[in-house]
Amino acid sequence: MASMATFFANTHYPTHYFPKTLNTHFAPVVKISLPGGFKTRSRQKLRVSCGLIEPDGGKLVELFVEEPLKGVKKREALSLPSIKLSQIDLQWVHVLSEGWASPLRGFMKESEFLQTLHFNSLRLDDGSVVNMSVPIVLAIDESQKLRIGESAKVALVDSDNNVVAILKDVEIYKHPKEERMARTWGTTAPGLPYVDQTITNAGNWLIGGDLEVIEPIKYNDGLDRFRLSPAELREEFTKRNADAVFAFQLRNPVHNGHALLMTDTRRRLLEMGFKNPILLLHPLGGYTKADDVPLSWRMKQHEKVLEDGVLDPETTVVSIFPSPMHYAGPTEVQWHAKARINAGANFYIVGRDPAGMGHPTEKRDLYDADHGKKVLSMAPGLERLNILPFKVAAYDKTQGKMAFFDPSRPQDFLFISGTKMRTLARNKENPPEGFMCPSGWEVLVDYYDSLVPADEGKVPEAVPV
Amino acid sequence: MASMATFFANTHYPTHYFPKTLNTHFAPVVKISLPGGFKTRSRQKLRVSCGLIEPDGGKLVELFVEEPLKGVKKREALSLPSIKLSQIDLQWVHVLSEGWASPLRGFMKESEFLQTLHFNSLRLDDGSVVNMSVPIVLAIDESQKLRIGESAKVALVDSDNNVVAILKDVEIYKHPKEERMARTWGTTAPGLPYVDQTITNAGNWLIGGDLEVIEPIKYNDGLDRFRLSPAELREEFTKRNADAVFAFQLRNPVHNGHALLMTDTRRRLLEMGFKNPILLLHPLGGYTKADDVPLSWRMKQHEKVLEDGVLDPETTVVSIFPSPMHYAGPTEVQWHAKARINAGANFYIVGRDPAGMGHPTEKRDLYDADHGKKVLSMAPGLERLNILPFKVAAYDKTQGKMAFFDPSRPQDFLFISGTKMRTLARNKENPPEGFMCPSGWEVLVDYYDSLVPADEGKVPEAVPV
Repeated sequence: MASMATFFANTHYPTHYFPKTLNTHFAPVVKISLPGGFKTRSRQKLRVSCGLIEPDGGKLVELFVEEPLKGVKKREALSLPSIKLSQIDLQWVHVLSEGWASPLRGFMKESEFLQTLHFNSLRLDDGSVVNMSVPIVLAIDESQKLRIGESAKVALVDSDNNVVAILKDVEIYKHPKEERMARTWGTTAPGLPYVDQTITNAGNWLIGGDLEVIEPIKYNDGLDRFRLSPAELREEFTKRNADAVFAFQLRNPVHNGHALLMTDTRRRLLEMGFKNPILLLHPLGGYTKADDVPLSWRMKQHEKVLEDGVLDPETTVVSIFPSPMHYAGPTEVQWHAKARINAGANFYIVGRDPAGMGHPTEKRDLYDADHGKKVLSMAPGLERLNILPFKVAAYDKTQGKMAFFDPSRPQDFLFISGTKMRTLARNKENPPEGFMCPSGWEVLVDYYDSLVPADEGKVPEAVPV
Repeated sequence: MASMATFFANTHYPTHYFPKTLNTHFAPVVKISLPGGFKTRSRQKLRVSCGLIEPDGGKLVELFVEEPLKGVKKREALSLPSIKLSQIDLQWVHVLSEGWASPLRGFMKESEFLQTLHFNSLRLDDGSVVNMSVPIVLAIDESQKLRIGESAKVALVDSDNNVVAILKDVEIYKHPKEERMARTWGTTAPGLPYVDQTITNAGNWLIGGDLEVIEPIKYNDGLDRFRLSPAELREEFTKRNADAVFAFQLRNPVHNGHALLMTDTRRRLLEMGFKNPILLLHPLGGYTKADDVPLSWRMKQHEKVLEDGVLDPETTVVSIFPSPMHYAGPTEVQWHAKARINAGANFYIVGRDPAGMGHPTEKRDLYDADHGKKVLSMAPGLERLNILPFKVAAYDKTQGKMAFFDPSRPQDFLFISGTKMRTLARNKENPPEGFMCPSGWEVLVDYYDSLVPADEGKVPEAVPV
């Protein structure tokens, strides 16, 4: 499992790794010749507006119904056969509606589903290829299929039967569950969290089509203001005059090893000649398994990390990525990277065993810890993205802080595993000074504290660092 | 399972299907302007030499050691750590050595293996993409790995310890068996024939590297003369002045439904303006499961079909494709198609459920019967190949022959299943006249006859038509 923070490692893979950053889409910027007297501000603006990486398919997809049509669409929806969405389905509507999966315009039809399963990518009409590694599909059962019949449109409703969206030009096709599992996770072992949630008991049919989303998805959990859409993030990066955006996907608390990695990445980007690299600190906000730290606690912890100055708020954007987790390792990390292109990121930091977990039935990790970054670096449709693999950081006892692991003096380093961290936090003990900022650590302690009464002393088994 | 012969069907998939044949690589040929007085013969020669589809990667790979170096290489091999090849390993050496998998130069290294598993394709150094859907890998166990140690080269030997090849620049990496199965077959159910043969009991390591093959692989079974390499096939097509080559992959006896399909394909290609379309009738010659009809019997049967004039020997090349079968459906059909590009075919006929079989543990087909042609039509690296999907043919009782199924009069058609055919052949009964040429049918009857004493009355369970 992705654990310790880390940094740039070289591999011999034929890739679009770091060295290729000199050929980024930013290159054309330097070709723009400006009159000498131009104000810096205007010039920066120009650079940025030319600079942000293009969304997949060339245009950011947004699937919202325009304001004047909302009433009409709502009334139309009431006349259509409807499908009740699960919480995870709703998260996918959110993802699709804001264009994280651009150029997808809705739940996958069979041709998209098959290309995703077999090729982790989609070929567009113009022959170009975009990455798409996890199926974004909506399952229905036999009775729902019968109710839909020949209707070309269906209404999607939430658990309270509020209309969320209309799915049009629908196509219903078989849900090959075993094959979907095998090709997405590389295993069919029972106990995969996302599979248990969304596949095992789901219907035997999938329904694809184009979405018309009536209202932006809100969660009313106090965190909606952190849920910036790709368009809003692009606006933010432009406002900040970013000339490079590096994304850090996470679903765990931030410790100082992570922070070291992020600040060091910025330093490297500055060295490369970028003037204002901006960090997108992008915790995943959709479904996570029971033993992950919940989003609300993670957000509190991230807030403390920024308050404490471990990360610089001036050059950091914290936002929530609305996707659910598949825990599908090398397959899923492509999705995590691709979605960030659509949000304007052109650098992506990838760690050990991204999106990995323990094998559900065997005593081993499900994925080879190096496959994620290797697969990501070779993935079709991600050639434009600069992949930043990183190596392990650990607690350096000689310095009393997190540092990049130096294999010449292993005895000086302390690896603080997820289990170790959990035990410490549960027992209200402190980790070595310099492992995590104290206020961030307190949040973790509070989280485990909050569990004890509800769980009668039982604490979730694994908490990855 | 692929059963009945068939013909061009239209689907709505975004594909490189039949209609795109007008944009084939043959198009440039018509741009060549020749002096009016040129002899037809020379002109045709010119057309053909410009015309055959380019191998993947631009150059047909052949991995044989040049004659003057053979002695040196054999002596070198004796000094190297060696790996004994199974019969299937040897078939893959055959496949690789002749360039069916061009531009692969040997057993896959990890970067090729991962790209195959995840993307069914390889990105070349120049950024172009070739299809590669099945892993071509060599497994070794712990003790073999230890024996190889740091050696950069190993000798590959056959079951009699004769040196077959040297594998150089070797890379040893983990053999993720479960993941390989899941991503290649879309299932991990026990009982997949190729998995049982080559994966379940294989070593936990894979060894990749570049092959130097000392002698062409021969089987001395009387059929070696039919084993034309891609280079030899290209030479044959050129000699015959082919201006289109359409490949038909099969591992079953040819009945008149198949023949109808092939002759009708030729008619269509002539209508499209090709002057001399040549059929590559290309039975698979490597490993097949126990209940398939063995190659030697199939070749006898194919011979009769040509002798009987069911297919025209003038416009048909019968040759053996040396690959083993994976029975991996939509994944494997891409390999079947890609290998034929390397042999010069620019049209590929694909049937119902290509390379499919029954699910090993459930009462259903392993793959959706339509997925094969859909996946093939969307596969990266196969854009240059014209895919010819076909629809079902069956025995038309009103005409007394095999004909394309007419859904407006289903009662007139008889579907002769594999089981039905087997029962008939075993009982020395005849199928309806016109189902298969009588001399071809006799071969089948003889085959089942030959089994009875050896199997004590038991006849293999399934014989696909």
